[in-house]
Amino acid sequence: VAEETSGKTGGDRPISTILIVIAMQTEALPLVAKFGLTEDADGSVFPKGVPWVRYHGAYKGLHIDLVWPGKDIILGVDSVGTVSSALLTFASIQALKPDLVINAGTAGGFKAKGACIRDVYLPSHVAFHDRRIPIPVFDLYGIGSRQTFSTPNLLKEVNLKVGRLSTGNSLDMSPQDEASILANDATIKDMEGAAVAYVADLLSVPAICVKAVTDIVDGDKPTAEEFMQNLIAVTAALDQAVTEVVDFINGKSLYEL
Amino acid sequence: VAEETSGKTGGDRPISTILIVIAMQTEALPLVAKFGLTEDADGSVFPKGVPWVRYHGAYKGLHIDLVWPGKDIILGVDSVGTVSSALLTFASIQALKPDLVINAGTAGGFKAKGACIRDVYLPSHVAFHDRRIPIPVFDLYGIGSRQTFSTPNLLKEVNLKVGRLSTGNSLDMSPQDEASILANDATIKDMEGAAVAYVADLLSVPAICVKAVTDIVDGDKPTAEEFMQNLIAVTAALDQAVTEVVDFINGKSLYEL
Repeated sequence: VAEETSGKTGGDRPISTILIVIAMQTEALPLVAKFGLTEDADGSVFPKGVPWVRYHGAYKGLHIDLVWPGKDIILGVDSVGTVSSALLTFASIQALKPDLVINAGTAGGFKAKGACIRDVYLPSHVAFHDRRIPIPVFDLYGIGSRQTFSTPNLLKEVNLKVGRLSTGNSLDMSPQDEASILANDATIKDMEGAAVAYVADLLSVPAICVKAVTDIVDGDKPTAEEFMQNLIAVTAALDQAVTEVVDFINGKSLYEL
Repeated sequence: VAEETSGKTGGDRPISTILIVIAMQTEALPLVAKFGLTEDADGSVFPKGVPWVRYHGAYKGLHIDLVWPGKDIILGVDSVGTVSSALLTFASIQALKPDLVINAGTAGGFKAKGACIRDVYLPSHVAFHDRRIPIPVFDLYGIGSRQTFSTPNLLKEVNLKVGRLSTGNSLDMSPQDEASILANDATIKDMEGAAVAYVADLLSVPAICVKAVTDIVDGDKPTAEEFMQNLIAVTAALDQAVTEVVDFINGKSLYEL
């Protein structure tokens, strides 16, 4: 608990600034519009040369920074995955000193664990499924399981599903990934959550994830195809859920979440 | 070339400061002793709370910063892998403005590609083998292949082998990893190189890797066992090679490497 409250806001004071980390532009832009945020024009808080984008503004009195890792400079696609999201989270926390980090995005869901397309989850735990290091203790480091910040009141108020999230750098799932995801007892899988939570933990900022299901991993359809088909529609469900979460957070302290 | 020389030192001026990024304490400490470096006591250049360690000093007139991601705060093992090394490289480049980044460490080698235990490689290219994203262009982003900084004169002078390096977060190798490593045409595999090179590229600092082979991936012995058996002995070969590389670099410009 001490760690969770060592930021600039104590756990019992109202949250004044939140950082929303989102991996894809398609997921980010509707929320930018919804919260009425403005893009950093010049004088970016990030180093010269990085493609990272920051939007910011006041929404109902709450300061929101929304960051997105931008398009890869050479290839022009969203800079997804753990390395980009970890770097962006690190630089953003350093520059913006948020009271709370929210990693919002899409995820694959397991129907065997009850997930359906458009479901939105608030994961209780995050872990990695593609960091296999079969040496004692290193194995646990690789899995990197950690709890997200506990928000019992938020869960009572906002209609979100609870489950565990497993993170890896691949959109597909190898048999080894699948075994690790099972071992992680995960209901959903993504490509950033555990990395964002790791960095937030390192810098003693509480973090939660909000993840909407775009595809069923243990279903019949190829993941990439199903993901692309559902991305836009599911983003609407994600945006609504993130808005409800932010509305709930606004005016409350960390302890009241 | 423009990108490679946009740091504080132009490509034609002598290199004045180098950053050596090393994932494991066992690999780092002999070099700290060899170069006569001192650990940052207080007033660290890194944020409060992170386990990252910086050693620094002047070696034959060249300023060297050697950084190591430290022991995981909860688990007490070296913070290996792409996320930690990317974060450490990012924060170190921001704080220390090096002219050149050297990622030194151990690697697994493929005997089918000519690698033997204790061989030291200066990889020409790096790429990832555990970031499979089967969507056009995203697939290339996931692989993240890039050239290291070209050092033809260094290769003539110092006895190092050349090959391609493939990076992933697992010590072991799944069949999917193996297929990607083959596609990357890699002779050696590690857990940090491509992530360090990605960050250096993002911040326009030239980067090279120096990797010593601790285990034969396509051999008979289990990787973890062979790695642990050979780590100390191979570290001696790594340290000698890094010293020769640093001695060669000292007094030269980037263009002379």
